[in-house]
Amino acid sequence: MNHKPSTVHRPPLTVIKIGGNILTNDAILDEVLSDFSEIEGAKILVHGGGRKASEVLKIMGIEPKMINGRRVTDAPTMEVVTMVYAGLINKNLVTKLQTKNCKSIGLTGADLNSIQAHKRIVEDVDYGFAGDIDVINSGEIKALLDVGFTPVFCSITHDNKGQLLNTNADTIASALAVALSENYEVTLRFCFEKDGVLLDVNDDDSVVEMLSKTDYENYKSTGQIYAGMIPKIDNAYNALEGGVHEVFICHAKSLNADYFDGTKLKI
Amino acid sequence: MNHKPSTVHRPPLTVIKIGGNILTNDAILDEVLSDFSEIEGAKILVHGGGRKASEVLKIMGIEPKMINGRRVTDAPTMEVVTMVYAGLINKNLVTKLQTKNCKSIGLTGADLNSIQAHKRIVEDVDYGFAGDIDVINSGEIKALLDVGFTPVFCSITHDNKGQLLNTNADTIASALAVALSENYEVTLRFCFEKDGVLLDVNDDDSVVEMLSKTDYENYKSTGQIYAGMIPKIDNAYNALEGGVHEVFICHAKSLNADYFDGTKLKI
Repeated sequence: MNHKPSTVHRPPLTVIKIGGNILTNDAILDEVLSDFSEIEGAKILVHGGGRKASEVLKIMGIEPKMINGRRVTDAPTMEVVTMVYAGLINKNLVTKLQTKNCKSIGLTGADLNSIQAHKRIVEDVDYGFAGDIDVINSGEIKALLDVGFTPVFCSITHDNKGQLLNTNADTIASALAVALSENYEVTLRFCFEKDGVLLDVNDDDSVVEMLSKTDYENYKSTGQIYAGMIPKIDNAYNALEGGVHEVFICHAKSLNADYFDGTKLKI
Repeated sequence: MNHKPSTVHRPPLTVIKIGGNILTNDAILDEVLSDFSEIEGAKILVHGGGRKASEVLKIMGIEPKMINGRRVTDAPTMEVVTMVYAGLINKNLVTKLQTKNCKSIGLTGADLNSIQAHKRIVEDVDYGFAGDIDVINSGEIKALLDVGFTPVFCSITHDNKGQLLNTNADTIASALAVALSENYEVTLRFCFEKDGVLLDVNDDDSVVEMLSKTDYENYKSTGQIYAGMIPKIDNAYNALEGGVHEVFICHAKSLNADYFDGTKLKI
């Protein structure tokens, strides 16, 4: 359900989430950042960095621990993900974007208290300092966009009580897109190294160009869509249902207008 | 020489540099951040974090290397200082400040291209990715201050060609204070764990309350002021000579108006 009246004029905002292999391949990353910089109007970049975090954890003698594809974030792991996401990856993205005339500013949810979360309630699994988002303070983010700055969010939030938290980057992108739909007509793109949602993970040509929610439920029941794609698509539908104008799951190359658009989601 | 005409009204801005033991003592840090939050008007916090960086370097199997009190920053060390300063320390300061109703935003010089530097020219010593500041883009920083945000700068700059650089935090504080003196009447405080400039390092009561440049030259020649205090005081005089209204070297407790002011510098 789209809650936003179409009669109100809202300027465009593009929210791009990058992750997967893109962050670890310098040549691809450079191309993606060039394409991102050329997007007109207000824009926000969101990134993860799990692979690099796991590398650094191992060098520091901490064994990365994942359950159901999610990181278990004990206190030492929280320190490392903060260093890797908010420090190493975020600031290297920011300095690269400046060379492309994109006035970027690297943020966590702690900055300006922009994304407030709570430590995940322990049910079956104790994920430690994993953060589930409560509030996006979109006024603060809009203040940055209004003066022409481009926020670059890493996947760290906080509880507004002095504790940083580790939050999935897809979820952050979705929540930002929803919150900013109040003021903007938002296009959200989840970019990775595939051309979109594949019906056969071994066949790059099996992209679904338009995915309805009914189709999605069917593909889940047949097992054609499974594992890590499920939370990603759920985040995409949360965005659409929260009032985001258009949502795509696509290759990072699709930031270039000449490239294939990827999978467009519809309710 | 003060270049700023005293007839032009400039609003106050306080620039605070914290370092030394303050960052590693939770109780003192909490008090300092409370006092900082209560400073009225525009303010900026600048921090280092060398001790923590050296700890993390060692855990990662990299031996910290210092020459003349300055860090030699090879490529792996640059990654670690970026992680520690811009990630771990900066974002923990920012989340703590939010709990004190200070709308802080953590930055490096790469963010908004706010502090542009060049890789230090090799003369006697190759300091690696050490950055000497060329330009402060004060318009971008002022845009943040204008909407009531409080920048928290760590000691990372960049060359605006995609390379992050490691820059001394005292130097950053001094350069920010000078650049912003164009628009603000700036008070700059270099805060550490001593009550000010001591004439006898073993006597905490030997604080100089007012230090003139002539006295400073004399104390240097007698050896009463030496080692790490020299670059700190040089940074302080650079600030005063660049148009900063007032400069102090003081205990971090002096952010509380009831505490001793520390050493005030005069030209």
